[in-house]
Amino acid sequence: MRRGVLHEILFDAAWKHGTTELVSDQVRITYAEAWERAVKAARAMQAMGIGRGDVIGILDVNSHQAFELHYAASMLGAVAHPLNFRLPLNQLVHMVRQGQDRILFANSAMASVVEALSPLVHHIVWLGEGPADDDGAARGRAQLAYEEFLSGAEAGSTPDAGVIDADPYSLLHTTGTTGRPKAMRYRHRDIVQAPLQIAHHLALHQTGAKLTSDDVVMPLIPFFHIHAWGAPIFAPYLGLKLVLPGRATPTQQIHLIEAEGVTWSNMVPTQLLMLLDAMHNEGKSELRFKVLTGGSQLPLGLASRAYEAGIRYSVIYGGSDQLCAAMTVSAHTAGSRENLEALSSRLIPIPMVRMSIRSEEGGELPADGHSVGELWVESPWLPNGYVGDESATKSSYVDGWFRTGDLAVAHPDGTFTVVDRVKDAIKSGGEWIIPSVLESLLSEIAGVRMAAVIGRPDERWGERPIAILAAEDSVDASTVKLHLEKAVEDGRLARFWLPDAIHLVDDLPLTSAGKVNKAELRLRFA
Amino acid sequence: MRRGVLHEILFDAAWKHGTTELVSDQVRITYAEAWERAVKAARAMQAMGIGRGDVIGILDVNSHQAFELHYAASMLGAVAHPLNFRLPLNQLVHMVRQGQDRILFANSAMASVVEALSPLVHHIVWLGEGPADDDGAARGRAQLAYEEFLSGAEAGSTPDAGVIDADPYSLLHTTGTTGRPKAMRYRHRDIVQAPLQIAHHLALHQTGAKLTSDDVVMPLIPFFHIHAWGAPIFAPYLGLKLVLPGRATPTQQIHLIEAEGVTWSNMVPTQLLMLLDAMHNEGKSELRFKVLTGGSQLPLGLASRAYEAGIRYSVIYGGSDQLCAAMTVSAHTAGSRENLEALSSRLIPIPMVRMSIRSEEGGELPADGHSVGELWVESPWLPNGYVGDESATKSSYVDGWFRTGDLAVAHPDGTFTVVDRVKDAIKSGGEWIIPSVLESLLSEIAGVRMAAVIGRPDERWGERPIAILAAEDSVDASTVKLHLEKAVEDGRLARFWLPDAIHLVDDLPLTSAGKVNKAELRLRFA
Repeated sequence: MRRGVLHEILFDAAWKHGTTELVSDQVRITYAEAWERAVKAARAMQAMGIGRGDVIGILDVNSHQAFELHYAASMLGAVAHPLNFRLPLNQLVHMVRQGQDRILFANSAMASVVEALSPLVHHIVWLGEGPADDDGAARGRAQLAYEEFLSGAEAGSTPDAGVIDADPYSLLHTTGTTGRPKAMRYRHRDIVQAPLQIAHHLALHQTGAKLTSDDVVMPLIPFFHIHAWGAPIFAPYLGLKLVLPGRATPTQQIHLIEAEGVTWSNMVPTQLLMLLDAMHNEGKSELRFKVLTGGSQLPLGLASRAYEAGIRYSVIYGGSDQLCAAMTVSAHTAGSRENLEALSSRLIPIPMVRMSIRSEEGGELPADGHSVGELWVESPWLPNGYVGDESATKSSYVDGWFRTGDLAVAHPDGTFTVVDRVKDAIKSGGEWIIPSVLESLLSEIAGVRMAAVIGRPDERWGERPIAILAAEDSVDASTVKLHLEKAVEDGRLARFWLPDAIHLVDDLPLTSAGKVNKAELRLRFA
Repeated sequence: MRRGVLHEILFDAAWKHGTTELVSDQVRITYAEAWERAVKAARAMQAMGIGRGDVIGILDVNSHQAFELHYAASMLGAVAHPLNFRLPLNQLVHMVRQGQDRILFANSAMASVVEALSPLVHHIVWLGEGPADDDGAARGRAQLAYEEFLSGAEAGSTPDAGVIDADPYSLLHTTGTTGRPKAMRYRHRDIVQAPLQIAHHLALHQTGAKLTSDDVVMPLIPFFHIHAWGAPIFAPYLGLKLVLPGRATPTQQIHLIEAEGVTWSNMVPTQLLMLLDAMHNEGKSELRFKVLTGGSQLPLGLASRAYEAGIRYSVIYGGSDQLCAAMTVSAHTAGSRENLEALSSRLIPIPMVRMSIRSEEGGELPADGHSVGELWVESPWLPNGYVGDESATKSSYVDGWFRTGDLAVAHPDGTFTVVDRVKDAIKSGGEWIIPSVLESLLSEIAGVRMAAVIGRPDERWGERPIAILAAEDSVDASTVKLHLEKAVEDGRLARFWLPDAIHLVDDLPLTSAGKVNKAELRLRFA
């Protein structure tokens, strides 16, 4: 009986693509071996008394061990809880406390974080090189190295907890730049269907991040960000070789791409920038592979650099609180600015997803290409709200729709452009100024590495934009002003959008998700 | 709230691909119009008191009206019951009686059949040209022409019966060549998921019947055969123009392909043969389009003729009692015999489907490329049995698996070859002789149009094969024997497989599903 539960995907991969490789740091196993190891992990957890509904914390880089644990959880009917180790400790404590995690699987290099989490869980199992030598960590808790934990599992059949597709599978936390992370529970059917629809959408269209049955996939998006945008699920589903980069630096990522024949990856724009910088440092002008990017706006300057380096891409739109919603799947391959712009912004809803632009009163705005409103999303894989936060649930999940908090425009051809977060948009003299549009323009200036535009309170206009740029020494304020003036003359920018101030800095502060930390910039500059 | 029900597919098509065409005989509408008409059909049925669980009989060729009704049924939570008008009347009576159909939508050219069915239903609505003038038909029943029926619907919103994906959506009858048709009930989730997985599988692989976002689809498989193998579902899902051929003859089908730019079709091998014959008669040597074929073995001779005519194909395996299970998705494009053979027979399970070859005792046979056993199939869209037939259910649906009644071989590379029906296979001296293998060899002989091999009772061996050929006058028994002897010499055939007799006839009898009627051949020749 097929139940539509997550571990059926790895089961089928072991059966149909048993010899296909899973590469993780120094380890090279097959899907058949990964399945056997996941069964052992499930049996070992079962022996510890872990079962249906128990929450399993996973604090790790993208490794084969973390991969296995995600499938082992499914067999037991347990709930996978991937944790973002880059978050501040107090947020991690909140997450583990809220999840009531019973067991924590943690990378041994993260011992100091684990020490603080250890009082909250019953068991700790060390991933990676083995148990931490530092016995100060996780005092008084049962401690095991994962490989010993596996080899201690009694042989036997796959645990069958009778799980069905409507049972909960995972607990995901947002990585909000302000406030506490919010939690969503997803069912097996959500975590099976949404990643598969990404794969199907990319297979059906002639597009930058097209997926075929010959690709080799390396997710640079961490598992704790919406299950690495589904890559560890659709790769075994499609029988594709999976390369898990562990702690690889951008330079090491380049070597992995070449050595393992990686043809497809996913990453946020910041990671793409770092990869391009590493290529530059390595004297490499070209690296042909496909990238699915998203999570924040892809500036045109970066898009154009990637394009020239041989990288073909599509942009995905979604988030922890809605999974995936839309992708750019433009057939344009030429590198003109219009095409790159479309390829970076013209989102097509993923099949089964509906999108709607709403006014502040909730009425639907016309698909005219210029009416800006909040983007609402409806899909089969929306969660039923934020765990334990009824008021946030009420304001975000309305009549089966999710209010994304993003500003967007609907075009007459059925595509959508997300312009900014509602809370990042600047209201000046009663009119919207969209920071992402300015940031994209600023990124075109030679020597500008990253650009951020934020609102500064203004007595007369309410708010006015200011720009903060991470740029090379060759860039000064007058270069920037000249470029923006030209954009005004060319009709690409309204004059009242011109920033009141331009700050040049060495680096922009980033959030743990690799996005520019605008909260911090507001504190410093506004 | 997205519920995963069938009519969401047409709703989304109207929203995303509203101007894409649906062509049906003399009618040309858009998906947006088809949605509006389906809403009207649902409202008109609602006004008649038809609602949740009521069964809707549809007796029609592939038309836009039948298409709309399939989606209207979904809105009401009613059950669509497509009826095979080619079946004998007593079987149709059995089907409508078993379904307890409340309303019958019938093509006006089928008035004589409808007369017999009319006492069984509450309402009759005429499709096609309008109501039958013959007032003998459907005496005493409310009679309406479909277009009047639609225009009588009160305006208003889409009916919402609160249907969910686990609710029943359709009632399908098998078209068994012997015995009464058996019935299966399928849920919305089955009829959404299975066709979409066909589309996704064909999109992901480089194969003959590859589907892209640019195709134009014309299903020659009738709606009453497993919903035309999903084509009227995945075409709107993908936003593809849909051409419904109505009563088009093979010659008219060729003209439709050319006039409407059809690039993708589905058909059984007999239809493919008729299309190639029509091309020959029209003096057309080439027609470039893609075909998904199946339903019976594709003989190598026919495969090769199609290939030479520019037709690229894949083979699908499935049936009314299991929906779809597997497809050939070979990347081979060259026309060598080995490649054509692989393209016709090496089946890869559709994602989420499991296949297993079992001995008569139910044990799994090895994937060694030669152990012949019964094919068992497991998938998320299996029905829960035959309606009202517990004993047939018990013998066919075992532990979540469906026993297909087909003989097959599993290959070491994970592919499967279906060799024949268990009941058609010939047991001679304790060994299997597979008619389909002989039939394929016989089809290679120039001038042989169709070949059938059946078993004849034999005192010494139990059974022996005999061959019946529909061939041109140029073919005689000695040509056939020479060809088979050569196959034995070349190691393609075991000597004991040589048929004991060869009969040459003008035409082979076909079932309503276009397969050779072996039951009738056995009566005449065995």
